[in-house]
Amino acid sequence: MSIQFELTLPQYRRGIHLITDIIENSLKDRAVTETGLLSIFVKHTSAGICINENADPSVRTDLTNFLNALAPDNSKLYTHTEEGADDMPSHIKTVLVGNSISVPLNRGKMNLGIWQGIYFLENRNKATNRNLVLTVIF
Amino acid sequence: MSIQFELTLPQYRRGIHLITDIIENSLKDRAVTETGLLSIFVKHTSAGICINENADPSVRTDLTNFLNALAPDNSKLYTHTEEGADDMPSHIKTVLVGNSISVPLNRGKMNLGIWQGIYFLENRNKATNRNLVLTVIF
Amino acid sequence: MSIQFELTLPQYRRGIHLITDIIENSLKDRAVTETGLLSIFVKHTSAGICINENADPSVRTDLTNFLNALAPDNSKLYTHTEEGADDMPSHIKTVLVGNSISVPLNRGKMNLGIWQGIYFLENRNKATNRNLVLTVIF
Repeated sequence: MSIQFELTLPQYRRGIHLITDIIENSLKDRAVTETGLLSIFVKHTSAGICINENADPSVRTDLTNFLNALAPDNSKLYTHTEEGADDMPSHIKTVLVGNSISVPLNRGKMNLGIWQGIYFLENRNKATNRNLVLTVIF
Repeated sequence: MSIQFELTLPQYRRGIHLITDIIENSLKDRAVTETGLLSIFVKHTSAGICINENADPSVRTDLTNFLNALAPDNSKLYTHTEEGADDMPSHIKTVLVGNSISVPLNRGKMNLGIWQGIYFLENRNKATNRNLVLTVIF
Repeated sequence: MSIQFELTLPQYRRGIHLITDIIENSLKDRAVTETGLLSIFVKHTSAGICINENADPSVRTDLTNFLNALAPDNSKLYTHTEEGADDMPSHIKTVLVGNSISVPLNRGKMNLGIWQGIYFLENRNKATNRNLVLTVIF
């Protein structure tokens, strides 16, 4: 059996944002109580999702800086430049980090480690609202 | 409930190839109409799969060039060289990009964003046919 | 339907370790015979999991060295340094490689390619035991 719904995130600035609470609340709102697997899928090609430390915000800062150094804006490698200097590096970061995660669900709650939170990566300088597809499989 | 089948891809040259239509057709051929999750799993260690822009082919070119620069053939770092200069970088790219994706299914159709397509990464210079395992969970 | 259980790994030193047998045995121990999908989820922010070559150990050595060069200990980029020089690069590697995999299950057995094995990445110098969540969906 499965439950599937879409979620629109608030408009974020470029960087990494903790969205654990938004996901948790969306499961509560829909009274999800099942044990199984939660898939969170980003429907965009320049925004990513992953799991990492939920405590010290410097982890998110350093990860942002690392990715910006790895795939810099304005690299001479890029030929896909019509949509802005931040577009091609956004695609690269999305591919490296991934655009979906799978999280174990236990009685409707995400079975995360105590230090784990859900990171949403807005890779563009100016993005519109981003949409997620959540699928619960049980 | 689940449906599982294997799919053999056409023999691709080194680079990134859009396989969205092949996946869509394989679901139609098997009359999949369920809502749930589709897992696509590459059964190889030097080929990858991910999701990114389906429109401008320059995104695939730039991503290919980025990965080739990140994990170049003939790097002095590699000791695993018996299978060719393109072998170890192929393993690295496969690990960084991933060898499987999970896609939400809605009434048998992949619930992708309008700009999203499925990328198959053939990382070897000369590869044989590659096999995928598709699993539909509903 | 789903089966979910946790698994504690042996204490590994920093590096990449093949855990295919541990996963296979955990499925046998629980008499899993279903066809569907197996999710393996690492409950930590500085250890990762992926799939790659199970044969020549030099692939694991080269991948370890590649990741250590890509996200070196003691990089001047990092501000998150209180937990040790190996902490922030561990978070980065975990994000790039991923903290979970999905594997097709066929009658209780992982449907892997003949050269594929499951890699566990211990990114810290001194780690305690690490916990996995395994979820079988069928």
